Amino acid sequence: MPVIVDTIALVGTGLIGGSFALALKQAGAVSEVLGLGRNPAHLNVARELGLIDRAVEWEDAGRADCILLALPVGETETVLHQLSPHLKPGAIVTDAGSTKATVVAAARATLGARVADFVPGHPIAGSEQSGPGAARADLYRGKRVVLTPQTDTRADAVTTVRHLWEAAGAQVEILDAVQHDRIFAAVSHLPHLAAFALVDELAQRPDSETFFRFAASGFRDFTRIAGSSPEMWRDIALANRDALLVELDAYLGALQTLRTALSADEAATLTKIFSRAREARENWINKQDA
Amino acid sequence: MPVIVDTIALVGTGLIGGSFALALKQAGAVSEVLGLGRNPAHLNVARELGLIDRAVEWEDAGRADCILLALPVGETETVLHQLSPHLKPGAIVTDAGSTKATVVAAARATLGARVADFVPGHPIAGSEQSGPGAARADLYRGKRVVLTPQTDTRADAVTTVRHLWEAAGAQVEILDAVQHDRIFAAVSHLPHLAAFALVDELAQRPDSETFFRFAASGFRDFTRIAGSSPEMWRDIALANRDALLVELDAYLGALQTLRTALSADEAATLTKIFSRAREARENWINKQDA
Repeated sequence: MPVIVDTIALVGTGLIGGSFALALKQAGAVSEVLGLGRNPAHLNVARELGLIDRAVEWEDAGRADCILLALPVGETETVLHQLSPHLKPGAIVTDAGSTKATVVAAARATLGARVADFVPGHPIAGSEQSGPGAARADLYRGKRVVLTPQTDTRADAVTTVRHLWEAAGAQVEILDAVQHDRIFAAVSHLPHLAAFALVDELAQRPDSETFFRFAASGFRDFTRIAGSSPEMWRDIALANRDALLVELDAYLGALQTLRTALSADEAATLTKIFSRAREARENWINKQDA
Repeated sequence: MPVIVDTIALVGTGLIGGSFALALKQAGAVSEVLGLGRNPAHLNVARELGLIDRAVEWEDAGRADCILLALPVGETETVLHQLSPHLKPGAIVTDAGSTKATVVAAARATLGARVADFVPGHPIAGSEQSGPGAARADLYRGKRVVLTPQTDTRADAVTTVRHLWEAAGAQVEILDAVQHDRIFAAVSHLPHLAAFALVDELAQRPDSETFFRFAASGFRDFTRIAGSSPEMWRDIALANRDALLVELDAYLGALQTLRTALSADEAATLTKIFSRAREARENWINKQDA
């Protein structure tokens, strides 16, 4: 594969940024990978693992052809503010945040006219693992990446970012940022809150040991996402607060409906809800696997 | 391994019963496996797959040394009523239901003095798959099986059932039936309701396709148990209604706490809840894997 951009800089060299760099290097799509981050230990590991070629300061990062922000979304504005004065002409900035509306607002607040070079993005891949040690070259293979360009985003910047993700093995889709946030509030952010809430409620009981002792594989899968980074998910929840509250209320309503049916011994209602859920999930799985 | 009982009969030849039989045959712990069930097609498949040696009627099932009920818990009373007149002296009856208090009540209502030969049981193993085709000899290997004998249960019947499950590779624990139901309401029945509710709520939306299209691996794991049998879970929910309502209310409370924190932008509260949940889950996983 020909080189797509000479140099990329990662702000954040954990699972998401590190896997992006590994995939692009393996594909021959970039020549050099620079890395920045608050955590010097992470940067060292990232260099030792070959995720980045060298650790740099803001000034050097701004001279990269493409800079990927791969960090908790709550840090976006601060980071863009630091990066902004150092951006070389034509440099593209993109991100990997799980919410998009507040990220777009942060770019607009910090980048001035250079907001045209900012391509908001969200790779739909990840793991409850985090850190540079979890990075792998195939994380994005066959996965979706959503880009939410604005009307004033430079078209060729979008094309470059699209080509980078495609080189990493992903399939790129374009969505409106608000629509993106609404969708992911429902299918990702709410399930995370629901899993965190369930595990914490159990853990707070004086006799929690007795419960955990008998938890099995269904519990393990249901709560896998409760093993995710608390800081990252706090930022996502706050950044997507309004859409998430709407989803949380819809979920509370659905649980109340089940509660009413259960307390009235309405067997037929329970069967109907469980059957619809199973059928919907099976249809979804069949489409995914097709 | 020496034979533990000559003949077992399965009432229900799906995943749970079929896997029990396969494991016992493989271990040489039984000589013959008889099968009963409402569904003739299932019985044929069970015979073709070698889960049972032959399909029989109630009269023959009652002549087995041990009869395992492996069917939705709501059918327990009807089945015990049909089986009861045919039980040979000394025959042991056990079950694999996910709730125990209503199963014990059904045994008491139908078996008369023979209730002493009924050993209530619950293998903590399974899958969202069901039917004889899903049965496998190693389903119970390394898994827990809970027995909830009553004060009047015959001690040697408990020992025999324990030996059978151990021959299938499981580790047997004794619990009080009410305590059992309270624990499993929290770690199994509630998560199933929570997963069914989440998937159904999404599926009922006019634009549900848009949401499912972007659901990814976190959603897949969180909702795996929503692929479970609606009839089986309706029966479990109703049989364990009171304990489940208590758990559902605790969960609704935990979600409301998160909702309040989120709507007030209380970052510290979110971090605290998410961190406690992650830590509790990690401790649990570490113990499981140890």
